Amino acid sequence: MKQITDLVLGEHFTAFFVARRKEIKKKKNGDPFLALDLADASGHIDAVWWDFAPDLFGKTETDGIEAGDVVKVAGHVEEYQGIRQIRVEKIRRAKPEDQVDLAKLIPVVELDRQVLWQNFRKMIDSLANPYLLSLLRRIFDDEALAKKFIDAPGGKLWHHNYLGGLMEHTLNIATICDRLAKIYPAIDRDLVVAAALVHDLGKVDSYTYGPNFDYTDAGRLLGHIVIGSQMVAAKINEFPEFPGELAMKLQHLILSHQGKLEQASPVEPMTREAFILYYADEIDSKLNAIERINKDERPRGAKWSKYVNLLGRYLYLGEQQQK
Amino acid sequence: MKQITDLVLGEHFTAFFVARRKEIKKKKNGDPFLALDLADASGHIDAVWWDFAPDLFGKTETDGIEAGDVVKVAGHVEEYQGIRQIRVEKIRRAKPEDQVDLAKLIPVVELDRQVLWQNFRKMIDSLANPYLLSLLRRIFDDEALAKKFIDAPGGKLWHHNYLGGLMEHTLNIATICDRLAKIYPAIDRDLVVAAALVHDLGKVDSYTYGPNFDYTDAGRLLGHIVIGSQMVAAKINEFPEFPGELAMKLQHLILSHQGKLEQASPVEPMTREAFILYYADEIDSKLNAIERINKDERPRGAKWSKYVNLLGRYLYLGEQQQK
Amino acid sequence: MKQITDLVLGEHFTAFFVARRKEIKKKKNGDPFLALDLADASGHIDAVWWDFAPDLFGKTETDGIEAGDVVKVAGHVEEYQGIRQIRVEKIRRAKPEDQVDLAKLIPVVELDRQVLWQNFRKMIDSLANPYLLSLLRRIFDDEALAKKFIDAPGGKLWHHNYLGGLMEHTLNIATICDRLAKIYPAIDRDLVVAAALVHDLGKVDSYTYGPNFDYTDAGRLLGHIVIGSQMVAAKINEFPEFPGELAMKLQHLILSHQGKLEQASPVEPMTREAFILYYADEIDSKLNAIERINKDERPRGAKWSKYVNLLGRYLYLGEQQQK
Amino acid sequence: MKQITDLVLGEHFTAFFVARRKEIKKKKNGDPFLALDLADASGHIDAVWWDFAPDLFGKTETDGIEAGDVVKVAGHVEEYQGIRQIRVEKIRRAKPEDQVDLAKLIPVVELDRQVLWQNFRKMIDSLANPYLLSLLRRIFDDEALAKKFIDAPGGKLWHHNYLGGLMEHTLNIATICDRLAKIYPAIDRDLVVAAALVHDLGKVDSYTYGPNFDYTDAGRLLGHIVIGSQMVAAKINEFPEFPGELAMKLQHLILSHQGKLEQASPVEPMTREAFILYYADEIDSKLNAIERINKDERPRGAKWSKYVNLLGRYLYLGEQQQK
Amino acid sequence: MKQITDLVLGEHFTAFFVARRKEIKKKKNGDPFLALDLADASGHIDAVWWDFAPDLFGKTETDGIEAGDVVKVAGHVEEYQGIRQIRVEKIRRAKPEDQVDLAKLIPVVELDRQVLWQNFRKMIDSLANPYLLSLLRRIFDDEALAKKFIDAPGGKLWHHNYLGGLMEHTLNIATICDRLAKIYPAIDRDLVVAAALVHDLGKVDSYTYGPNFDYTDAGRLLGHIVIGSQMVAAKINEFPEFPGELAMKLQHLILSHQGKLEQASPVEPMTREAFILYYADEIDSKLNAIERINKDERPRGAKWSKYVNLLGRYLYLGEQQQK
Amino acid sequence: MKQITDLVLGEHFTAFFVARRKEIKKKKNGDPFLALDLADASGHIDAVWWDFAPDLFGKTETDGIEAGDVVKVAGHVEEYQGIRQIRVEKIRRAKPEDQVDLAKLIPVVELDRQVLWQNFRKMIDSLANPYLLSLLRRIFDDEALAKKFIDAPGGKLWHHNYLGGLMEHTLNIATICDRLAKIYPAIDRDLVVAAALVHDLGKVDSYTYGPNFDYTDAGRLLGHIVIGSQMVAAKINEFPEFPGELAMKLQHLILSHQGKLEQASPVEPMTREAFILYYADEIDSKLNAIERINKDERPRGAKWSKYVNLLGRYLYLGEQQQK
Repeated sequence: MKQITDLVLGEHFTAFFVARRKEIKKKKNGDPFLALDLADASGHIDAVWWDFAPDLFGKTETDGIEAGDVVKVAGHVEEYQGIRQIRVEKIRRAKPEDQVDLAKLIPVVELDRQVLWQNFRKMIDSLANPYLLSLLRRIFDDEALAKKFIDAPGGKLWHHNYLGGLMEHTLNIATICDRLAKIYPAIDRDLVVAAALVHDLGKVDSYTYGPNFDYTDAGRLLGHIVIGSQMVAAKINEFPEFPGELAMKLQHLILSHQGKLEQASPVEPMTREAFILYYADEIDSKLNAIERINKDERPRGAKWSKYVNLLGRYLYLGEQQQK
Repeated sequence: MKQITDLVLGEHFTAFFVARRKEIKKKKNGDPFLALDLADASGHIDAVWWDFAPDLFGKTETDGIEAGDVVKVAGHVEEYQGIRQIRVEKIRRAKPEDQVDLAKLIPVVELDRQVLWQNFRKMIDSLANPYLLSLLRRIFDDEALAKKFIDAPGGKLWHHNYLGGLMEHTLNIATICDRLAKIYPAIDRDLVVAAALVHDLGKVDSYTYGPNFDYTDAGRLLGHIVIGSQMVAAKINEFPEFPGELAMKLQHLILSHQGKLEQASPVEPMTREAFILYYADEIDSKLNAIERINKDERPRGAKWSKYVNLLGRYLYLGEQQQK
Repeated sequence: MKQITDLVLGEHFTAFFVARRKEIKKKKNGDPFLALDLADASGHIDAVWWDFAPDLFGKTETDGIEAGDVVKVAGHVEEYQGIRQIRVEKIRRAKPEDQVDLAKLIPVVELDRQVLWQNFRKMIDSLANPYLLSLLRRIFDDEALAKKFIDAPGGKLWHHNYLGGLMEHTLNIATICDRLAKIYPAIDRDLVVAAALVHDLGKVDSYTYGPNFDYTDAGRLLGHIVIGSQMVAAKINEFPEFPGELAMKLQHLILSHQGKLEQASPVEPMTREAFILYYADEIDSKLNAIERINKDERPRGAKWSKYVNLLGRYLYLGEQQQK
Repeated sequence: MKQITDLVLGEHFTAFFVARRKEIKKKKNGDPFLALDLADASGHIDAVWWDFAPDLFGKTETDGIEAGDVVKVAGHVEEYQGIRQIRVEKIRRAKPEDQVDLAKLIPVVELDRQVLWQNFRKMIDSLANPYLLSLLRRIFDDEALAKKFIDAPGGKLWHHNYLGGLMEHTLNIATICDRLAKIYPAIDRDLVVAAALVHDLGKVDSYTYGPNFDYTDAGRLLGHIVIGSQMVAAKINEFPEFPGELAMKLQHLILSHQGKLEQASPVEPMTREAFILYYADEIDSKLNAIERINKDERPRGAKWSKYVNLLGRYLYLGEQQQK
Repeated sequence: MKQITDLVLGEHFTAFFVARRKEIKKKKNGDPFLALDLADASGHIDAVWWDFAPDLFGKTETDGIEAGDVVKVAGHVEEYQGIRQIRVEKIRRAKPEDQVDLAKLIPVVELDRQVLWQNFRKMIDSLANPYLLSLLRRIFDDEALAKKFIDAPGGKLWHHNYLGGLMEHTLNIATICDRLAKIYPAIDRDLVVAAALVHDLGKVDSYTYGPNFDYTDAGRLLGHIVIGSQMVAAKINEFPEFPGELAMKLQHLILSHQGKLEQASPVEPMTREAFILYYADEIDSKLNAIERINKDERPRGAKWSKYVNLLGRYLYLGEQQQK
Repeated sequence: MKQITDLVLGEHFTAFFVARRKEIKKKKNGDPFLALDLADASGHIDAVWWDFAPDLFGKTETDGIEAGDVVKVAGHVEEYQGIRQIRVEKIRRAKPEDQVDLAKLIPVVELDRQVLWQNFRKMIDSLANPYLLSLLRRIFDDEALAKKFIDAPGGKLWHHNYLGGLMEHTLNIATICDRLAKIYPAIDRDLVVAAALVHDLGKVDSYTYGPNFDYTDAGRLLGHIVIGSQMVAAKINEFPEFPGELAMKLQHLILSHQGKLEQASPVEPMTREAFILYYADEIDSKLNAIERINKDERPRGAKWSKYVNLLGRYLYLGEQQQK
């Protein structure tokens, strides 16, 4: 099925999109029309539906459509003042029987998720500490969890906000921790890598990951750190021979990985490994966020990004538009 | 056995104390003597041991004694420059077979702990919500836990830093929550009272409560909030019919009860009840801390306390010395 | 006279409203029309005036109307795209001789203000300390002041932002202080209750309380704390036998009741009573603000409020839509 | 009477000092002796009293002496390891009938206080605005107040911590405001100068200014800003024709002169004059504090001061030791 | 050539403006028209161009025009709903050969820049220290630099945001420092005045000062403090006899003049002169910002400014509209 | 020559030490003796000099000795109450002709400095960008600079506070940046590695590195960031073909490497490479500080460090005493 970036001017098509915004506007003659912002994984495009009209009961075919819904659209592409837009012919909410593939509609990690997953399993297998190796395998051998983990986004808006983002982020952090452990021999490599692999596990239950990423109730009320810490605690409880000291250190790494109380970590790093994990997390989040800004928030041709509120500054992205 | 405040000038006695400080000083003739600060639940007093002397191997009878140890002392009370002190005749570390009653040696809550415990159970019994009632009973019917809970201090230094302090603090907070729920009908009284009763449960495993209160490793590395939240989670897991929404709200109250991320709560209050619990905790901690300051850090006859670092101010305690 | 929530589709009526917003828009034919947001104590509604037209001198009948004015409107209710609006037939600013009852136009405390006032007087009468009792009576026996106090809002936007809000807020705080004094015997109950009753007295001169609540010049330049503190000081000055120590403590409570310098208290709580008053104020402000958010800033059917900037979070309001 | 800096080695003298520290130490033979730190306006010096001995009742002649007391000492100057000290022969607390001149015992502003006072009155007389001129004259014509104002220190420790310091500081600030008003014509010169002259008036009742400067109870519980604001309010109340707008602006300047809420100003500067007064206060406090540090906290021969906690840095004072 | 404030209703004119905003809107018949916000040094005005139309290739005559460009406009003034606007007849981007005088198009300091420059040179000549005198002369004798300095704005938005603003600001600060040096004899007058004269020198390379003030890349990536510090360092390097101690002190003043690390000063004031320079900078920036707010952000007839975000407050500007 | 850790009980020796502390104490008979804390690179030890005595003029042989001096000591090792100390027989300040090797007296980096230096040069040679390669070679080919760089400490107290610490720290950071550049292809590897190699260059002129590390005047007044930035700027100025854009980016990395304004960086990271350099610096500083704490501030046998003020927490160092 056509993706937005494939659409050709004049071409008629039928496709599924996420309706990111929906507004009723007025034509010159005062009649209402529907203006939409439609998106799929490849990008987004404005759309108009001129034949939109309430029936006798004030109801319209699009009444059920809310921002965030998946919709099925028949239409064609036209150009208005030099900008392409979709002229909608028919539109309705997607139904379960449409079996829409979300991964086509919302952004997905660039690398193949199965490849990432294999690399992720290899990173687990690299653990020499038998307790950590067993624990990690038990956690990720759970197929339901693995499925969620492979799909989960790494964040709502700021970084890794796409399907598979959590896995990509996790693997990057584990890699950084592994490299740093080679430079600093006092670090317990297996502990920090294992902790990296589960540090954001709670995120699988903290986001809804339908067409719009949002927080679950538990994601907001409990936070992904405590959710993840309880998931790991439950697995360790099933594993009586797991050393208490090791469990405590691992939990400390999960709990402290955001580095500061005001970043919602209930404890701050107190071990070498906890500092390493925190910095690795910072590096990967920041660099991923910069690439997102580079792609989405850089005025065409500009060397500077728009003002980035979360950082309180502009970013200098340089000339390299090709990247 | 004699308490420090009962000792009479000249009287010979044998008693157990906590050695809070131990120092080797020099007599005028250059010989060493031992200076101690001895404490029991009633107060503390300086002590000197003149006959302290290393043997041929440089060892002395007090070598094993470290600050924080319980010691058995035979001696009498003398006065030096107007201040009473103990002249030690014999001293040794306490042994297990001495069966020392810690509650005589370290400060204990003023009210009878059994009475407090009965009131605490009554507060549990006041819960009308059957899930919360059952949950709370299951938690506190565990005798090992109840024993620890009845003894635990409420804090290390700042407030309720005495045996039974945790129970007293918990009961006060539950009482305040109960009173406030009467003023604000939108509050779910049973939810907030139940949360109050378990909000600091993790403290039973966060402090060592021998002669000196200190943090356990887990107390520091995980924090009492997460420890307590996991204890409650484990009990709820044994209780499949417990409503998920209620469990989530209860956990939210435990996790957010310190009110602010920078106070080590991983989430901040987002429900009416969470705000109430946070304020009740603030009120009881602050008022208890003020009474401790009134007792311990108020120069004799002064209307003002010493400078209180944690508050960044002096406290005006007024004329009421009798209190 | 009709309130907004009573208006029936098609019905012709004449009524007074507050014009919260006034905008000149364009019809399809390019002619201007007037769009208004009209409010009374029961709610608000959009309104349009199609016959709006400048005269030869560019003046219109609505020229004098500014956002915030009380207007007299004749019109009827119609529906536009499923939303009710008022079609204005005649509109003019209200005149003094209209004798508009503001309490019908702007939100008023739910409970009857006369009942609140009687309860307030009873709380004064409950003071056993004769100096405080006399002082409080003198202050509130002043009829001009009492009249303003009974009407004053408790705040501009955040909490108790309706007529009578100040009295309701004050009475709640006094009640909380009274309850807490029962739990903590070291508290001087009469002092803290008396202080609660006057803690926000300066607010009677800090807000304009016409159709829009706003700050007076003095409200901004001096602040309600200092204004109130000077009002109480002036009354005490008329009362030579009032004990100096008691006056100082009472003033300290008024000055410190916002708890922190950065909350505009020129001194921070240094007495037990000052802490209690501060917490009681926090509790009542927060709970009232939450109910306002629950009513006004909760998307229909949602369990969560909109993002609350002042708290930096969403609030979980749960399922209880009926409330 | 001799000042400390005039004392000659070996000379016998009788003089009054402030006993800044008093300690009981032990001689080599174990007998107690008294070690004192004695100060007058010219400096301070160590003193020892060898003949100190408790009587049969454990009382000594110095029992009544507390740190901060004025004492009468007879003795002579000796040298111990190259450092001069006083060998006390007799010592007792000063009595009212001694009529000690405090200005000899505690630091006093360098310039003559009568000259400063005349300059201060001239600055008042320079006001062209008749209301401000009358108001300021009424305030400072009060002889009791003037007497306190002429003596009062400008601060406890940080700046102008000497008799007359308040007047010197006040006059400097008024001078700076006057100069700045010449550069910025939008400034109301008389308003800002008048406000400068009373901005710290509350300090006359905020410090005890006996041998040690300390806060009064009101100084701590109410703060000098509110005390001063109430003093000025009371004077304005006696003066019915004083324009309300002018009174409000003047009060705003007094209340906001510390510039920031967290510096205990209940409102922040909102007028041009309020900003000017705030900066003038900052400049004079900082420069005076630097001179104090230059004199008292600069290691001999060093170009750098000791670490200044309040500023969080060292100060570079350069080579100019002569200054 | 006509300035905006000179334009007369109905008059036809040709003039240059800065196009601050450019938008394509729709007429009632659906055709596009161009709406502009045109500015020159005297003010700004809305403009419409009805005859705007894309050619066959979708290009229009205004395609090259971007917000911020200087444009040449022929048109006349009309009135729409009581507000004057320009009806554009012809419009094009300005060309180099138009030799537009920017000083007519963007705001310029009120005083004559040549007079300011002479006063500035006089301030340099007032330096008695021969090294500082020579250094300052060498710096400002560089004609290219002097030209930029005479034109440069003092800031982008907040204060002195007009041509010549940097020179005006610099001269004011030097004047304040000179006055304060008279009050505090410990200050090295020549050092602080010289530092004042170069403190913001880096701003000449930190802003683009075409029609819109914006940061240069270096202005953002290095900051004006470091740029200026390196400019001065380079001049001192050409001047081998310049005393090292003096160079270091001068550099310290440049680097620390924003007073606080969080204000982008890499070091904080550590000398008397550095504090003075910092306060002088604060005073002049704040007072200039207040006058800008007074002129631009004060609702007509209001005594209060709009809310000033950077200050977190409203400003009370009083009745004096004439100013 | 003997190092402190080699000294044998009873052995007579002559050696050089740093006198870290010098105090005059009293013997039992009242005579003064000298107590010293002597250190060399291997550790430190207490020392006493009993024969210390002032001559007739109150002068003693040790009068010139100040804390921080290098001293020549003849003496032997004795034991006092189980602790070894040096009994001094002769002591004097070291003279230039003693040609003391500081590297024996103060702590030195563990790895051989010549090996580190070769690795450092190899890292330079790994740069492919010809401009950066040439620039770095020019900088470090300067022998005087290289000599200082090889010896310089990385910090005064917190991290790498030993000779060679700067080089070790620099090389670690360059290594981390190199590794991270492999993980994130968008990073300009040569830019970030080159910046890492010079990021702390200014430290060579910011510390005195005699027996005690301390700041130079310029180190405090200008800061190592600006000093280093000016050193690099001067080298680039000698190199006219160096691309301006590259120079600006490199300078941005040097200036922003402390990551935050409040950490004394005058600009904050705005490029990918600047973030990477900042995190690499954080990681290496923190890990080195932890090892210092592990060695110096860990009570014997404890799993926890002492409280670390700069981090506001205890560190959990675990059981691994062997490390």
